[in-house]
Amino acid sequence: MIDKLIENIKKTNAPVVVGLDPMLNYIPEHIVRKAFAEFGETLEGAAEAVWQYNKAIVDATYDLIPAVKPQIAMYEQFGIPGLQVFKRTVDYCQRKGLVVIGDVKRGDIGSTSAAYATAHLGTIQVGQKAFMPFGEDFATVNPYLGTDGIKPFLDVCREAKKGIFILVKTSNPSSGEFQDRQIDGRPLYELVGEKVAEWADSCMGEAYSYVGAVVGATYPEMGKVLRKIMQKSYILVPGYGAQGGKAADLVHYFNKDGLGAIVNSSRGIIAAYKQEKYAAFGAEHFADASRQAVLDMIADINGALGAR
Amino acid sequence: MIDKLIENIKKTNAPVVVGLDPMLNYIPEHIVRKAFAEFGETLEGAAEAVWQYNKAIVDATYDLIPAVKPQIAMYEQFGIPGLQVFKRTVDYCQRKGLVVIGDVKRGDIGSTSAAYATAHLGTIQVGQKAFMPFGEDFATVNPYLGTDGIKPFLDVCREAKKGIFILVKTSNPSSGEFQDRQIDGRPLYELVGEKVAEWADSCMGEAYSYVGAVVGATYPEMGKVLRKIMQKSYILVPGYGAQGGKAADLVHYFNKDGLGAIVNSSRGIIAAYKQEKYAAFGAEHFADASRQAVLDMIADINGALGAR
Repeated sequence: MIDKLIENIKKTNAPVVVGLDPMLNYIPEHIVRKAFAEFGETLEGAAEAVWQYNKAIVDATYDLIPAVKPQIAMYEQFGIPGLQVFKRTVDYCQRKGLVVIGDVKRGDIGSTSAAYATAHLGTIQVGQKAFMPFGEDFATVNPYLGTDGIKPFLDVCREAKKGIFILVKTSNPSSGEFQDRQIDGRPLYELVGEKVAEWADSCMGEAYSYVGAVVGATYPEMGKVLRKIMQKSYILVPGYGAQGGKAADLVHYFNKDGLGAIVNSSRGIIAAYKQEKYAAFGAEHFADASRQAVLDMIADINGALGAR
Repeated sequence: MIDKLIENIKKTNAPVVVGLDPMLNYIPEHIVRKAFAEFGETLEGAAEAVWQYNKAIVDATYDLIPAVKPQIAMYEQFGIPGLQVFKRTVDYCQRKGLVVIGDVKRGDIGSTSAAYATAHLGTIQVGQKAFMPFGEDFATVNPYLGTDGIKPFLDVCREAKKGIFILVKTSNPSSGEFQDRQIDGRPLYELVGEKVAEWADSCMGEAYSYVGAVVGATYPEMGKVLRKIMQKSYILVPGYGAQGGKAADLVHYFNKDGLGAIVNSSRGIIAAYKQEKYAAFGAEHFADASRQAVLDMIADINGALGAR
């Protein structure tokens, strides 16, 4: 699946991913009203609004981008109807040719991690038949439990040709509380990065590994170091835009071939119509605002890559 | 909710929790066959088998125990039908008076962690109405992202009177890879434990905090140290039984008042009928085997506590 991701990135010339992280207050009122009219003020109504919103944004942007990253928490908060829309979104994006990165940040041990890997990347055997429970192409994974937590994901990745991005250095202000602590003179995130490199070696696609890493855009100096430690891993970069990460800071997350990183924007794209810059589109044309925001983001990042 | 948990523990005199972590191969064939006959070899059929299995075990044990801990991964692997049964299990156990610890190990940042907290412990506003998406009483949480990831859970805990157990030292063999690394001469898990103590202070029930910790039964020496660091936190202890943790090792996880810890067993209880010790019950009477295994576990742990 890493090869498909890279193929998509080359085809679109866009090392970006759109984060489909819908909050109810991002969704234009006309969509919410219509969904409530049909399903009531219920979890089903909220989930329907999310679905219509997602669908419009995907329809308006899928030809420009290689991948999307739905954040499952935003669906899980609407219970079962929300998760049904998560699954519908995954399926719809894949039919549009997009690679789907399930931002699920799962992580447990042994058979439990295996169950998560099955849920999000694999197939499950039921009697004589096999089913794909959620069927994303990639999943994000938390490393705190060590190799026992990661290995079951690697097994599924190899079998199903899927991939993972392991949290190494997250974009939030307090990520340093544990991740930056010094161990034998080096921060924890570097040790995690070294483990990622080791796991990545065991799970190679053509040029890059099926095992990637998450490194926040908000810590560019650390990104530079981690790029060198994890040479064969794609880096998924959250924190661009709304969280403060700038394109010029991100060039070191990429390799010289222009590959090796994919930059996520969620709110900055899906709620673009709420920004002053795109206000002229109006709430009715929110999806066109998202398309313009994607074009601007691609130009911004490619501009910075070209200028280095 | 910590007060309710403690009340239940005192009432049953049983500091134990039954892990409802159903694997399809634990479920007796007569249940699976019946579910497949009704729903086919489908995710719905598998989920129905899980539900009938859970229900029988809960019916056979609920009067002996204070709490259950369903592991959501085992349900997530059956997709939407699996998660519907997760929710049905949560509701059913609560109607039986049990405290439900959702073993979800979620953790993200800011609004995303808030969405997970809402999904599992809180209520979500949809128009004029409020809904409880999954509605567990406690959730397990991963600390790798730091305070940004934990604070939204604390906010929901305070409002909804719910609780969390934060992963500090997990029971698996490779938990030491990161958790045991020395930082200024002390292991990472101790620093996480200190943070837990700080968060716990801000979120107190009567005698204990709404913020507890997960410390594996397989590392009793570390449990002893962590007990002292996190004085007001309940410790949820996985790893007893099947993973090798013994009752005598666990006495230091408890305070002098006999409170402060709750020991989980999953496979050892729910698949008891597969053990030689309980084989006489047979697959038909698997739930009776589970009841006997619960009685034996309570006697084992209370015996060790009495002997200290």
